[in-house]
Amino acid sequence: MKKVAIGVDIGGTNTAIGVVDDLGNVMVKDNIVTPSHGDIDRYINELAQAIRELIKSVKLLNTDIEILGIGIGAPNGNYYTGTIEYAPNLSFRGVVHLVKLLQNQFPELQTIALTNDANAAAMGEMIYGGAKGMKNFVMYTLGTGVGSGLVVNGDLVYGHDGFAGECGHTILIPGGRMCGCGTPGHLEAYCSASGMKRTAFELLVKYNANDSLLSDKSYRELDSKMIFEAAEKGDKVAIEVFELTGKWLGQGLADTVHYLSPEAIFLFGGPTAAGDYIFKPTKESMEQHLLPIYQNKIKILPSQLKQGDAAIVGASALVYKELEKIEQI
Amino acid sequence: MKKVAIGVDIGGTNTAIGVVDDLGNVMVKDNIVTPSHGDIDRYINELAQAIRELIKSVKLLNTDIEILGIGIGAPNGNYYTGTIEYAPNLSFRGVVHLVKLLQNQFPELQTIALTNDANAAAMGEMIYGGAKGMKNFVMYTLGTGVGSGLVVNGDLVYGHDGFAGECGHTILIPGGRMCGCGTPGHLEAYCSASGMKRTAFELLVKYNANDSLLSDKSYRELDSKMIFEAAEKGDKVAIEVFELTGKWLGQGLADTVHYLSPEAIFLFGGPTAAGDYIFKPTKESMEQHLLPIYQNKIKILPSQLKQGDAAIVGASALVYKELEKIEQI
Repeated sequence: MKKVAIGVDIGGTNTAIGVVDDLGNVMVKDNIVTPSHGDIDRYINELAQAIRELIKSVKLLNTDIEILGIGIGAPNGNYYTGTIEYAPNLSFRGVVHLVKLLQNQFPELQTIALTNDANAAAMGEMIYGGAKGMKNFVMYTLGTGVGSGLVVNGDLVYGHDGFAGECGHTILIPGGRMCGCGTPGHLEAYCSASGMKRTAFELLVKYNANDSLLSDKSYRELDSKMIFEAAEKGDKVAIEVFELTGKWLGQGLADTVHYLSPEAIFLFGGPTAAGDYIFKPTKESMEQHLLPIYQNKIKILPSQLKQGDAAIVGASALVYKELEKIEQI
Repeated sequence: MKKVAIGVDIGGTNTAIGVVDDLGNVMVKDNIVTPSHGDIDRYINELAQAIRELIKSVKLLNTDIEILGIGIGAPNGNYYTGTIEYAPNLSFRGVVHLVKLLQNQFPELQTIALTNDANAAAMGEMIYGGAKGMKNFVMYTLGTGVGSGLVVNGDLVYGHDGFAGECGHTILIPGGRMCGCGTPGHLEAYCSASGMKRTAFELLVKYNANDSLLSDKSYRELDSKMIFEAAEKGDKVAIEVFELTGKWLGQGLADTVHYLSPEAIFLFGGPTAAGDYIFKPTKESMEQHLLPIYQNKIKILPSQLKQGDAAIVGASALVYKELEKIEQI
């Protein structure tokens, strides 16, 4: 009997669905459009249909399959209530009872669980990735924004209301750059992939660097991959972008250590592909900002989740975590 | 049978010891000098002697007493190892195996536990005070420094090494005031009682306020109580000290919420005696800095622990928490 879990990642434009084996490999996957029409019942029917198709196809591959459950990652997904609440980039209004609606579709499944995407990534790291066996660690996802998932004593930190772990929205520089949420100075405005783009253009302006490899890109098109490629070619502006991003991120991670003293902090997302360009200055800056009792103890590690599948894999990990909890009772 | 716990608070100059009943009342208490000679064996003998005297005297009050254990709060106290590690304001060198040394003195006691003073205060709030029944809350102690104790899912956050919860040393204003630890810009440098004094003198300078009630105090003598008394008399500088302190503290507490989304944040220490002078601007600033999903949900509350006894009472609460854990196994 092969045991598998279904992972669902609800994004602003697409919903990715996959069947994941117990080693974190995606066996089959599919995508449906996350609707802009806001009709939740229609969406749930489409989602359930897609899940059923995937189950069917995976059972063709292997007849001896047990489906353990469904894990879902979604913006503003609330673990406690199984609801998505007022997610700014989804078309559904108010509070959507996602878990309940899916339970109606799949009454045979014992476990359907929901959380936000960064928490799901942290669970993926713990169940299948580099955080196996760790009881205290933190996951930062660096993308358009900065998400975070905190694990304390082996459990995700959900807080009293299910919404803990929005470390991207802590203040790094009071009165600084405007964050996507409308408040100035958040870590996300500096350390996300978009933040790196902003830093690049700040430096182009500062040095009037018409000779930089980044100077022929429009504001809209520049991304963290281009900055990495330019850094590899020795572009000074690009290299300084990584140094500054690392300096800022290290400051933020030091705060994280002063809160939680985790065994490791995992970084996930596009900018981490740059390896030492980002990890080295981040580590240096973090160490500089740490109290002596924490120095040279906390690891900063690249996530071991595969970039493309991480959201599905992370969501599916929720199922294993739930089953672990049920076993403990 | 009356069950009691012993609380020990090890400070830089004094060690306070008390026998605490199950409602958090101190029945008897005593003080010994925390030595500057660094001789740990001599100190342990003196401490054990003082504890035995207190047990004797409490058994004279009530013959039907059961001693449940000893809880200790100490700077850099490590719960996992039972050691005090390199505490900057204690004379003991290196790593002191405090719990083991006390177990040798009291082999009859099942539970001897150690943590730092702010964690002990958080436990006091949870076992005897305003956080009864709360599973997710945070305690900030505002004194010479700023300590913090984080409670997640009903347990203190110790981190992977026992040292989590140093939120006073997170960065509030990069490059700002020098913190006692030697790093600029920490929350402690702004929001502690000493931080308030610094703010007062900054404002005296800014306004050249020779008419302020605070202008006849030396830098060394001014304290948060004097600032409160001046504010009550309408002193503009003193009132602005509270407004600024609240603005800064609220910014820091918003970060705390973005990390942990606690049900409540408790404030303890001298400055909290000023009531609305400090709570109102803190609350306003926190709300301004919160993401919408957290707004108007998180309480900021005064600690219900009695100022004078809180350290002993908090330390004794560790014993109840340990017994709770043993019962669960």
